[in-house]
Amino acid sequence: MGVVYNRLAGQDVGRIAALSDGIFAVAMTLLVLDIHLPETSGVHSEAELWAGLVALAPRLVAWLMSMMTLGIFWLGQQTQLNHLQRADRNLSWLHFVFLAVITLMPFSTRLLAEFFSYRVAFFLYWANILFAGLALMACWLYAERARLVRVDAPPEIAGAICRRIIYAQALYAFGAALGLVHVGLGVAFILLVQLNYVIAPKLPILYKL
Amino acid sequence: MGVVYNRLAGQDVGRIAALSDGIFAVAMTLLVLDIHLPETSGVHSEAELWAGLVALAPRLVAWLMSMMTLGIFWLGQQTQLNHLQRADRNLSWLHFVFLAVITLMPFSTRLLAEFFSYRVAFFLYWANILFAGLALMACWLYAERARLVRVDAPPEIAGAICRRIIYAQALYAFGAALGLVHVGLGVAFILLVQLNYVIAPKLPILYKL
Amino acid sequence: MGVVYNRLAGQDVGRIAALSDGIFAVAMTLLVLDIHLPETSGVHSEAELWAGLVALAPRLVAWLMSMMTLGIFWLGQQTQLNHLQRADRNLSWLHFVFLAVITLMPFSTRLLAEFFSYRVAFFLYWANILFAGLALMACWLYAERARLVRVDAPPEIAGAICRRIIYAQALYAFGAALGLVHVGLGVAFILLVQLNYVIAPKLPILYKL
Amino acid sequence: MGVVYNRLAGQDVGRIAALSDGIFAVAMTLLVLDIHLPETSGVHSEAELWAGLVALAPRLVAWLMSMMTLGIFWLGQQTQLNHLQRADRNLSWLHFVFLAVITLMPFSTRLLAEFFSYRVAFFLYWANILFAGLALMACWLYAERARLVRVDAPPEIAGAICRRIIYAQALYAFGAALGLVHVGLGVAFILLVQLNYVIAPKLPILYKL
Repeated sequence: MGVVYNRLAGQDVGRIAALSDGIFAVAMTLLVLDIHLPETSGVHSEAELWAGLVALAPRLVAWLMSMMTLGIFWLGQQTQLNHLQRADRNLSWLHFVFLAVITLMPFSTRLLAEFFSYRVAFFLYWANILFAGLALMACWLYAERARLVRVDAPPEIAGAICRRIIYAQALYAFGAALGLVHVGLGVAFILLVQLNYVIAPKLPILYKL
Repeated sequence: MGVVYNRLAGQDVGRIAALSDGIFAVAMTLLVLDIHLPETSGVHSEAELWAGLVALAPRLVAWLMSMMTLGIFWLGQQTQLNHLQRADRNLSWLHFVFLAVITLMPFSTRLLAEFFSYRVAFFLYWANILFAGLALMACWLYAERARLVRVDAPPEIAGAICRRIIYAQALYAFGAALGLVHVGLGVAFILLVQLNYVIAPKLPILYKL
Repeated sequence: MGVVYNRLAGQDVGRIAALSDGIFAVAMTLLVLDIHLPETSGVHSEAELWAGLVALAPRLVAWLMSMMTLGIFWLGQQTQLNHLQRADRNLSWLHFVFLAVITLMPFSTRLLAEFFSYRVAFFLYWANILFAGLALMACWLYAERARLVRVDAPPEIAGAICRRIIYAQALYAFGAALGLVHVGLGVAFILLVQLNYVIAPKLPILYKL
Repeated sequence: MGVVYNRLAGQDVGRIAALSDGIFAVAMTLLVLDIHLPETSGVHSEAELWAGLVALAPRLVAWLMSMMTLGIFWLGQQTQLNHLQRADRNLSWLHFVFLAVITLMPFSTRLLAEFFSYRVAFFLYWANILFAGLALMACWLYAERARLVRVDAPPEIAGAICRRIIYAQALYAFGAALGLVHVGLGVAFILLVQLNYVIAPKLPILYKL
């Protein structure tokens, strides 16, 4: 009976996409809840309000970094789903694991923003990115092995998706290593890597990545 | 007039699916809000931050258990909806009741995490799983009786869906009984049952479930 | 130019449905956040935890009432949207107003739960239901006037939708009047009316509503 | 490889729409969380509860303004997406930036409600509207340049979308300038501009906008 159930469960790529859009939407919107307003009691002039807002800078950096992370993974997952002809039970669970890792992002972001100079916080943040990448890679490798990829998908897509994840994760890992020297340096490097993926600069050396 | 309205209301399986994806997405993302950061005032070194994070272990166990519960029920409901040709007003309400039970999951999880050694907390958590299962079973039994199932659905699906729910709930009930002896034991058993459903091991004896 | 823009904006019924599912999903899931756990410091035994949970009863009543309200309006709106062939800019805005009223539901619920014996709280709760009904009625009347209803929609649907809203709102208004005598009485009456709509009893006298 | 990946990523307009509906739904529902109930300890009579609710007026004004802002932008973005035949990676990122600006709306609204008489708060609120407008304009200009607009889209739509954004932003900027004189005046003017867009009055002079 398990055989029957497992064969019939989770065949809908559209439902995975819909759950994913919901989770990314909630995670993106929750991120802003951690940018707390300055305390009303400490603000008596325009200048004090401005100073209170400027003091939010570390939280804004964490917000920006997490937003880009979410955007990169949302697009990465979407690219995979667009090239699948159907899903199965195992693939649904692999994407569910990926999404569970994504829901941890607001927690990691809060941790990083609250303990900005601590290596433990930065490494857990990086671990969150790492596990999201590993889960997304597992999704694709399984989809290929289980022949869920569309027959009309361009043959070069398979390699492109995997290499993209491996290159990006290698760069993030280098950022994590820089964080050993200085957390701010690691954060800055990861931000630059993310910006590179967002704006896809035409510098030949970076473009090849 | 009631007859007319009731005949014309709630025929859209897609809207049930969309509401469900939204609710599962929000519930999954809210779960992480209950993993509170260590107090900033109590952290003065990397070691203290690490210790503060390790102290979150019971909350992480509750988080993991609830995530798997949500995943199992999301997939279970999806499997049902995929085999329906249409919905009607009563089926929409039955799924609405199922979803209302699902929205209680973050509450039950918080209760379990906050009062981890209390039997009352564990039993309410289990009751939440039980009622979700009962509601989902009612959805399917009604769909069959009201002839909403697709005519091209494989004939073995009906029995497979019901037996799956009954076996799983029997195992959860056994876990609840173990919780009478010791709450930690009950939690561990339920986690194992869930892992079994997630990774669908190839052990013949479990596979038959 | 306003003419051009207004003619081309908001034609997609599917987008209204998707926004609505998202809002109902978030509102339903937020409702449970107002069922606060008992304070850890006040709980030293299973009996105290049980007592603390029993003390949540007024919040559970408010939760149940709001859940049924949301379900009734979700289904009511869905029935309308299913019978439209397209939307236009004005209809999108009317549904947006309806949804804005729906997002106030968690606020009204909290108000009622926190100030359970106060008439002001109960009347604002009722006003929330009233305005949701008025907005939904405006949506349908406009859709009819602007010829957005499907040509193949059964002719009796128009009257059915309007009468349904008017009957229900008349009953809710009677419940509000009962609340003048005693708030608990008003709440109980509204709960009964909602249960009637949810389970659609076969009692001939109620069935005609 | 970057070339391959970038060519194949983010082609799905439907996914952008789904993420957007999710984000608008969550943002709309979160707005109400900032309308805090009066403190239970300060309320001993119906009159005191009523007074406590009346004191929420500034938050209600901020809520109303933000709701209209969200509605205007939701409809504006939808109008764009409805006229696209496909998306690409860059367009997905531009809409992602637009959505990130939208997720800041609950923060700006809280800032404005909490510091209602402060110019800094009002200007940041206006900046949020401004950046949303700029991002949405960038989305359209890019879609045109990259030939993503449907070939059967009415030729007048392009100009209509751009002029709409420019006129509206000019009016908002005038409101911001009024805020230099008096914040309440700026808020009132922006509310009037928004109401104009919502109800689209038939006054010839305003209709041309």
